[in-house]
Amino acid sequence: MTAEARRAVLGQNQYGKAETRVVRITRSGTTHHIKDLNVSVSLSGAMDDVHLTGSNAHVLTTDATKNTVYAFAREHGIASAEEFGIRLARHFVTSQEPIHSARIRVEEYAWERIGTPDGGEAPHSFVRAGRETRTAEVLYDGEEWEVVSGLEGLVVLNTTDSEFHGYVKDRYTTLPETRDRVLATEVNARWRYAGTDVDWDGAWARARDHLLHAFAGTYSYSLQQTLYAMGARVVERLPEVEEIRLSLPNKHHFLVDLEPFGLKNDNEVYYAADRPYGLIEATVLRDGAQPRLPVHPARP
Amino acid sequence: MTAEARRAVLGQNQYGKAETRVVRITRSGTTHHIKDLNVSVSLSGAMDDVHLTGSNAHVLTTDATKNTVYAFAREHGIASAEEFGIRLARHFVTSQEPIHSARIRVEEYAWERIGTPDGGEAPHSFVRAGRETRTAEVLYDGEEWEVVSGLEGLVVLNTTDSEFHGYVKDRYTTLPETRDRVLATEVNARWRYAGTDVDWDGAWARARDHLLHAFAGTYSYSLQQTLYAMGARVVERLPEVEEIRLSLPNKHHFLVDLEPFGLKNDNEVYYAADRPYGLIEATVLRDGAQPRLPVHPARP
Amino acid sequence: MTAEARRAVLGQNQYGKAETRVVRITRSGTTHHIKDLNVSVSLSGAMDDVHLTGSNAHVLTTDATKNTVYAFAREHGIASAEEFGIRLARHFVTSQEPIHSARIRVEEYAWERIGTPDGGEAPHSFVRAGRETRTAEVLYDGEEWEVVSGLEGLVVLNTTDSEFHGYVKDRYTTLPETRDRVLATEVNARWRYAGTDVDWDGAWARARDHLLHAFAGTYSYSLQQTLYAMGARVVERLPEVEEIRLSLPNKHHFLVDLEPFGLKNDNEVYYAADRPYGLIEATVLRDGAQPRLPVHPARP
Amino acid sequence: MTAEARRAVLGQNQYGKAETRVVRITRSGTTHHIKDLNVSVSLSGAMDDVHLTGSNAHVLTTDATKNTVYAFAREHGIASAEEFGIRLARHFVTSQEPIHSARIRVEEYAWERIGTPDGGEAPHSFVRAGRETRTAEVLYDGEEWEVVSGLEGLVVLNTTDSEFHGYVKDRYTTLPETRDRVLATEVNARWRYAGTDVDWDGAWARARDHLLHAFAGTYSYSLQQTLYAMGARVVERLPEVEEIRLSLPNKHHFLVDLEPFGLKNDNEVYYAADRPYGLIEATVLRDGAQPRLPVHPARP
Repeated sequence: MTAEARRAVLGQNQYGKAETRVVRITRSGTTHHIKDLNVSVSLSGAMDDVHLTGSNAHVLTTDATKNTVYAFAREHGIASAEEFGIRLARHFVTSQEPIHSARIRVEEYAWERIGTPDGGEAPHSFVRAGRETRTAEVLYDGEEWEVVSGLEGLVVLNTTDSEFHGYVKDRYTTLPETRDRVLATEVNARWRYAGTDVDWDGAWARARDHLLHAFAGTYSYSLQQTLYAMGARVVERLPEVEEIRLSLPNKHHFLVDLEPFGLKNDNEVYYAADRPYGLIEATVLRDGAQPRLPVHPARP
Repeated sequence: MTAEARRAVLGQNQYGKAETRVVRITRSGTTHHIKDLNVSVSLSGAMDDVHLTGSNAHVLTTDATKNTVYAFAREHGIASAEEFGIRLARHFVTSQEPIHSARIRVEEYAWERIGTPDGGEAPHSFVRAGRETRTAEVLYDGEEWEVVSGLEGLVVLNTTDSEFHGYVKDRYTTLPETRDRVLATEVNARWRYAGTDVDWDGAWARARDHLLHAFAGTYSYSLQQTLYAMGARVVERLPEVEEIRLSLPNKHHFLVDLEPFGLKNDNEVYYAADRPYGLIEATVLRDGAQPRLPVHPARP
Repeated sequence: MTAEARRAVLGQNQYGKAETRVVRITRSGTTHHIKDLNVSVSLSGAMDDVHLTGSNAHVLTTDATKNTVYAFAREHGIASAEEFGIRLARHFVTSQEPIHSARIRVEEYAWERIGTPDGGEAPHSFVRAGRETRTAEVLYDGEEWEVVSGLEGLVVLNTTDSEFHGYVKDRYTTLPETRDRVLATEVNARWRYAGTDVDWDGAWARARDHLLHAFAGTYSYSLQQTLYAMGARVVERLPEVEEIRLSLPNKHHFLVDLEPFGLKNDNEVYYAADRPYGLIEATVLRDGAQPRLPVHPARP
Repeated sequence: MTAEARRAVLGQNQYGKAETRVVRITRSGTTHHIKDLNVSVSLSGAMDDVHLTGSNAHVLTTDATKNTVYAFAREHGIASAEEFGIRLARHFVTSQEPIHSARIRVEEYAWERIGTPDGGEAPHSFVRAGRETRTAEVLYDGEEWEVVSGLEGLVVLNTTDSEFHGYVKDRYTTLPETRDRVLATEVNARWRYAGTDVDWDGAWARARDHLLHAFAGTYSYSLQQTLYAMGARVVERLPEVEEIRLSLPNKHHFLVDLEPFGLKNDNEVYYAADRPYGLIEATVLRDGAQPRLPVHPARP
């Protein structure tokens, strides 16, 4: 290999401030509202110099991107995670010439109102709803928008209506077939919208409902089948959604063998296993749509 | 120091299987019910030999304690975390002569039914309610029972009705006083019952409600004051509770300084900090009760 | 129950700032040294008023305790975690009349120097040694000192010289006996010193060595036996140590059954399990010493 | 939108068993060796039926892929993470007609020998080296191989030789410039090899060394510059590496303001912050190489 062939060059690069935790309170008289977000900013553009020579002349500091998140929360409020992400992405790309594209990733944590002893609601007291995290990701390159919403950590379980049999039996197959098993998973989903003229909160809530209904309503012969039913339902019921990517760890619940103790176990007692776990992942698209969701989800 | 004085002796010791994950399904026709527990067993007794010589003659294996958890879930069902813990503790102490006391620790994860598109409930489909974890700890030494219930990870927040001022100003004090701040914490609580004739699920739900109501209803001048109000309310409203221990990390929400950007921040935009955090801990007792809850909570 | 009997009173209480992350750099010419600590302060005293009425007149703010950690790191340096904790505890108890006792908890993270291509050491570049965390806890009540050092997360494994048999066989025992198994655990240890005239770093390093040597050098018939050997070795070899508490999760490595595939498994292939796990805990004391280490370790 | 346009179709999909924890012991007389891996298998191919109809006729169970990991560890040993991944990938693609490609992801945990009191090494006792995790990922589609090695969680810190100034000042920029700061990061790196005729362990160790040497040896004006120096050094010194992707969270160490306490802080006392953090990511390629590493790293 010649010295020439050993030369390194810079490829794709991006930078920004990750995980800025912003909480926005708004007031309607004595009734308060809360938005609780974790915002990550990632910027790309004419950044060769900072990598090759250390010149920061094109660099908007990650500290400034953090400040922008806070200032925008004050100036513009947070109507929804998606709307907030769009506003931020547009700002970075249009206000800084060297920045050619911006990716804003938002995690949103839901809060519910604390009830009062008389059955009402406390006006400015909240309890965090720990269930799933809502996610939104906005990508803008100065011309096109890509908005991807999603959720992480929605754990669901069917106690029946799940079978598993008829699979390949190779030398290493020992799993017994079953006609009735627990099926449990943690739903991690990301769906891409066709445009930006969307009722973000409404669409997110409908997508979540459809995922739950499809999970509960599918008599399942494999987790793949359940996954497809979930994804197809979202695509078919929400015209604004072009594609959805689902990543479903199979949270195995193994029937405990109680025979050594002279007991039958008629699908009553299970061991909830941690590792290893099956991992089922697929994209479901609207017919004719171009797949653009990454097969590997973004981090952080 | 003489050789004699260097002699080591065995002190308090305990052993068992931690974190056995048992899920119990019960059926009422097509309607299924689920109990999802993480059970830790800890046994003490005549265990000098196994430490000093490695003789296991007195040792019930931790594997057998795990099996017992599963078998009891099948044989006796799981009426509540506390009832299940009592049954297990009694079994170990009464069936094994060398075992003199048993401590059973249970974490319980709540599941809610998935709704159906027509507004009903799916009969055997569940979504995990991620909020707090319910805990129960049972200690039995062959004579006396100690039952401690609790919860971990209940995150709450008041957007107003919290002040903080009038504190000591030493050389290292720089914190400005405030007449209006966000007060947020993660409630970790453990309360001890006077006996075992208790409606375990009902008492737990009432204690949780009182903690929330006291948090929401207290106009606060310090997190200590809020803590005491929460603990006192449980002790005063639940006659079956002797004492309660609360550990409240102050989940700081700092007002972001937006002045550099020409913006006012009238308690609207906050930064949710991770570390460090204030940590406020106290026991509240019924007048005359003996404190028995450890100041340091049990692990795991 | 009379209204009188329902009255709540305040019990043990403490407060402070947890997890202040302080990094101290010192310089010897171009050679730099680093100390990386996580410091938690917990104060007790005449704190009834703040709980009962919200008056902060006796309250040194947790923010000020955080500032004190930083200022002391600058003014006095950090000779060792224990010495730093002693200095802080003395300060809070002697400078604030309402504060009657202080508990300082320190976690210390070790860094190693990065090597240079020529086999030397870079003078101011470090890589974090991720192994165990060193801990120190200092309690001072104005009269007596209690210093407890320890370590957490030291994972060790013997591939042989471990047997397990001769245990009780009850109805729920199915575990087969074994004459050769993998024995692995995560060492969590806390040891209490007799006084404060101790070479803190030297004693800590010797204790760690003895724990490792005893683990490696004990032919084991039970994890309890290994635990006792580890604890006794520290007590017998370090005259300054009065007692040690060990908490050893049994990190089970199960032999995989390869017979279905026509393969023997002569202690070659193991499955490293997560949960459940055996948990073995005991105190070992110097003969005649009073046990003062809590059975339940402190959090956080 | 017509009913036709609402039709959903299946896109990219993959499945397998994630996080199979296999530990392999080998013996050279009384000296034992240990390999400790976490293996994830992901398979793709003719899997439409299982998604659309639930037919498992083409499905090799994830349980069987787990068994294969264990059986291969016994039959073939584990020479290196990469070699083991190659063997597994080839097996799945060549033995199952419906499987067209396989991706094997391996995490490897390092163990070091425990020393003996006389300065030697215990022959079959180990302590886990907690530093970084070694990773390997192998992709095989029946024709081409892609082998990507890497490491995660290598935390490094320079106490000096880092400046940061000359950056863009927009409305939201408040960060003061600095001529001397702490620079710390957690190195997450993945590099792709040109082929499979590689000394896997040797190349990995050399890449790790070069990353450390470049981090320590670069006088830095930005973390981007340091990142590029690290990546370029690997590409330029290891002819077998085609490209490297680095993801470097800026683990901010902020100088504590001690002026309120009348103290100077001449780069001595820092606060190690958790969130938010800068996140700097880039690919460095050999000149002329095609970028194939995903911008978003694979999970899990």
